[in-house]
Amino acid sequence: MDTRSIGVFDSGLGGLTAVKQIMAELPNENIVYFGDTGRVPYGTRSKETIIKYSKNDVNFLLEKDVKMIVIACGTVSSTALEVLKKEYNVPILGVVEATSLAAINATKNKKIGIIGTPGTIKSGAYEKFIKAQNSEIETFSSACPLFVPLVENGHFETEVAKLVIKEYLEEIKEKGVDTLILGCTHYPLLSKAIGEFMGDGVTLINAGSEVAKALKTELASQKLLKEDGKVGKYSYFVSDNVDGFENLGGLFLEREINGQVEKIDIERY
Amino acid sequence: MDTRSIGVFDSGLGGLTAVKQIMAELPNENIVYFGDTGRVPYGTRSKETIIKYSKNDVNFLLEKDVKMIVIACGTVSSTALEVLKKEYNVPILGVVEATSLAAINATKNKKIGIIGTPGTIKSGAYEKFIKAQNSEIETFSSACPLFVPLVENGHFETEVAKLVIKEYLEEIKEKGVDTLILGCTHYPLLSKAIGEFMGDGVTLINAGSEVAKALKTELASQKLLKEDGKVGKYSYFVSDNVDGFENLGGLFLEREINGQVEKIDIERY
Repeated sequence: MDTRSIGVFDSGLGGLTAVKQIMAELPNENIVYFGDTGRVPYGTRSKETIIKYSKNDVNFLLEKDVKMIVIACGTVSSTALEVLKKEYNVPILGVVEATSLAAINATKNKKIGIIGTPGTIKSGAYEKFIKAQNSEIETFSSACPLFVPLVENGHFETEVAKLVIKEYLEEIKEKGVDTLILGCTHYPLLSKAIGEFMGDGVTLINAGSEVAKALKTELASQKLLKEDGKVGKYSYFVSDNVDGFENLGGLFLEREINGQVEKIDIERY
Repeated sequence: MDTRSIGVFDSGLGGLTAVKQIMAELPNENIVYFGDTGRVPYGTRSKETIIKYSKNDVNFLLEKDVKMIVIACGTVSSTALEVLKKEYNVPILGVVEATSLAAINATKNKKIGIIGTPGTIKSGAYEKFIKAQNSEIETFSSACPLFVPLVENGHFETEVAKLVIKEYLEEIKEKGVDTLILGCTHYPLLSKAIGEFMGDGVTLINAGSEVAKALKTELASQKLLKEDGKVGKYSYFVSDNVDGFENLGGLFLEREINGQVEKIDIERY
């Protein structure tokens, strides 16, 4: 047993959709969350910048003495995970593997769609992992640069959101995929509109849910679960002011977080 | 006469629309441009973070020995200009005064609309300046958080752009303004669609054009013009990779800039 916290980070608010799933899956675990709201978004930046920023994020979480780090960010998971694993001793879990495995399990016609930020899609990380598991599966991907700004501005099921969904997903839909990976933790907030566009026959795979399940398995196999029966404690850190995060973050998390958020200077780490 | 460069900075690419106007207005002047592409956008961040980032930007430009600094960013001009003027000796020019004066000159019915990023609108800087000049003028403002992501992703006259323009501008249009301040240097790229929505009777005021004219007046009055008859030299610096900036930046500037852009670590300044 290990009572230390799980460290979770994301470029901003989106990772909270994964945290919500982790809380449900592992209610005893303590969680320290860092959202890099002062430098969000990551998904439109270069690989070098994403690596630089995610090292700051890991260094900050290590100062909080975490037992494992979850990258609740599709962009970092697909562009920086290998580098981070090489440089740090702490176990680090990204969203790509768990999410890809769930999609491989779900597909019947062996056609999987992948959507994510430009950084994620450029990396080809999901495609590579899926092909390595099963070379018969065909993948079709699309970068969706406007989804994060839409979500961060409350556009979930508006006409604008629906038009942008059509723009980014039309081609994937035409390919006849039966499974779609939501490769960015912001996207679950668009899942209703995405599901309606793709139709009933298409299974949406949520990166946040899958990484939460994988985290449980991983903690158990490394004997790191906190099994003292006490409900977990949560703390949240951000790199810009706390007010915006408290309001929208509460919505993402479906839980009140006012007064529990602290601002830090991430560039120092 | 002073042959030193003019320093221009913006949160990212948008400021290049102002640079283009400065090049046209002052073809002999040397220009050093910094775009904080590694931390763009500024407009959705807190005032403290905007001030912190813009100090980095000014410090970098001062190292280039500039004779004057132009803030080609509506957000920084409206939230950080006073602080920067107090802390630095170099003359600093923002977009708010020049743009507001042009709007005051243009309006006949004394109703001016102002659009900008959430940071700009929250600051109330345009409204305060206009009211101080002429208390009879009514102002109507609207924050447009999705305009910058739309422009940075090439959505200029698409159906999505038109819908978002309607969402943000409908109320201002109903108020009957005859003049609209485009309070963010990204917005000129939406001006065709904005103009069509607002109608022929509404004059659009472009922050970039106005600050270029004000800069010329200011340099002349301080005897800082470079009057050697030689065409100016331009250099561009960014905080993320150069490739994205070179491509889209060339479009903003309507000029080839490949090979002239250098990446720097802005967090060191």
